[in-house]
Amino acid sequence: VRFRYVIGPDGSVDPRDRGLAYGDGLFETMALRGGELQRLGFHFDRLELGCARLALPRPARRELKQRIESVASGISRGYVKLILTRGVGRRGYAPPQRSEPTIVLLAEASMAVPAAEISVATLSQRLGENEKLAEIKHLCRLEQVLGRLELSGLDADEGLMLSTSGAVIGGTSRNLFAVFGRRLVTPDLSRAGIGGVMRRSVLEEGERLGLDVTTADLRLADLEAADELFMTNALVGIQSVSRLDDRPFTANALAAHLRDALRLNDDV
Amino acid sequence: VRFRYVIGPDGSVDPRDRGLAYGDGLFETMALRGGELQRLGFHFDRLELGCARLALPRPARRELKQRIESVASGISRGYVKLILTRGVGRRGYAPPQRSEPTIVLLAEASMAVPAAEISVATLSQRLGENEKLAEIKHLCRLEQVLGRLELSGLDADEGLMLSTSGAVIGGTSRNLFAVFGRRLVTPDLSRAGIGGVMRRSVLEEGERLGLDVTTADLRLADLEAADELFMTNALVGIQSVSRLDDRPFTANALAAHLRDALRLNDDV
Repeated sequence: VRFRYVIGPDGSVDPRDRGLAYGDGLFETMALRGGELQRLGFHFDRLELGCARLALPRPARRELKQRIESVASGISRGYVKLILTRGVGRRGYAPPQRSEPTIVLLAEASMAVPAAEISVATLSQRLGENEKLAEIKHLCRLEQVLGRLELSGLDADEGLMLSTSGAVIGGTSRNLFAVFGRRLVTPDLSRAGIGGVMRRSVLEEGERLGLDVTTADLRLADLEAADELFMTNALVGIQSVSRLDDRPFTANALAAHLRDALRLNDDV
Repeated sequence: VRFRYVIGPDGSVDPRDRGLAYGDGLFETMALRGGELQRLGFHFDRLELGCARLALPRPARRELKQRIESVASGISRGYVKLILTRGVGRRGYAPPQRSEPTIVLLAEASMAVPAAEISVATLSQRLGENEKLAEIKHLCRLEQVLGRLELSGLDADEGLMLSTSGAVIGGTSRNLFAVFGRRLVTPDLSRAGIGGVMRRSVLEEGERLGLDVTTADLRLADLEAADELFMTNALVGIQSVSRLDDRPFTANALAAHLRDALRLNDDV
């Protein structure tokens, strides 16, 4: 399978591309720190899970890595965004028998330092449930866009989204962790949500720290009883939740510890 | 608000377009018969409903119609596809404060004559439920793509899709109608599905014929008891269902009558 690369904002995407037509594709947004791509292996793992779920051809890691590094070169701090689509297709949802998938690569420098804590408001906008689409980072993100539109009318930095059946899933663009004593819990994402790269790092680091790390079906009422809440994202790292709706949270020790352990505070 | 038009397959879409990044947009596929665009008003109505739901700027009908007619000129039989997106945005789900929405227009001639009847198989792939995204023709269509992938392994022309909660919604790209005596029933689409333009024509024509026309929460078992089933789509018109899974359907009188009444058989 050949892949058609579109490099940089001046590149051109075919108006018949199935990524545009149907959201038929995947994306990854990879942090650059000190000129180094962060957690590239985790990003590739998730991309490949998505390819398997959507029956998309899987790009070879070696070539993809070279292309990404080339786009990233010269940027010390920022990100590279990758979009992989099924490529140009004729009208109709059925994937073409043969296609040349598209890979878009965009890089941007950004010196913005993420806040150490954020306030969170529960949104009424919910996430549909689908086992095939859960965890992977596919292009169909209107629920998150509607979530952000709702958030813009609220006094909070991030929105908490539940699934249609009422399970807590996470932020519009962040995963959620709740601390109960020595237990570190994050929502089960087998029916909705995105399996974040920073979430995976935190789960692994939690194990290393000897915490009781679990994924669970969490309800909104469960969060009330948490000692500490924090959210994660590959670009912003780990952020303590200072408030969820009317409930303030003051504890932030584990989030701070994890930021140190994962070297997210390094100013590079 | 200015709209940026991308005309024809040689046009170029910006790789940062939010339609590609997040499925943040809408589409319409309009039939051309005898050089005339069919049901343009219904397509515009649905497009405008989608703009309201997604807080997208609404293009003026007059200019949009002129642009569409210009793209369609010279084609007697075929279709025009329109994609409207929120335009280029920066990274992140939050819509930009100001954007120049993108309108892609593609036209294609097609002399294919749709089959008068189709076989249908119930799919395991389901449709998520979301009141804000139901009915409108937004760009996030991976569920339908997965449905078509599943269908490719089955011996049927179209797949029947249920919602997460088990309500019958319709085909991967067609709406469904069931006939019970003088009752004409089509699934309620307030939580999932697309409100098709041909569906609307059939509902109006059914009223004119004095049928008892209703939208309802239909379950798979309800369909077993139907006298006749048919499916609709703006391009293929009205197609009788000859078989749903193991249940054959021989009645097709109402579908045939509606095709005549709506002049879908005219060979233009």
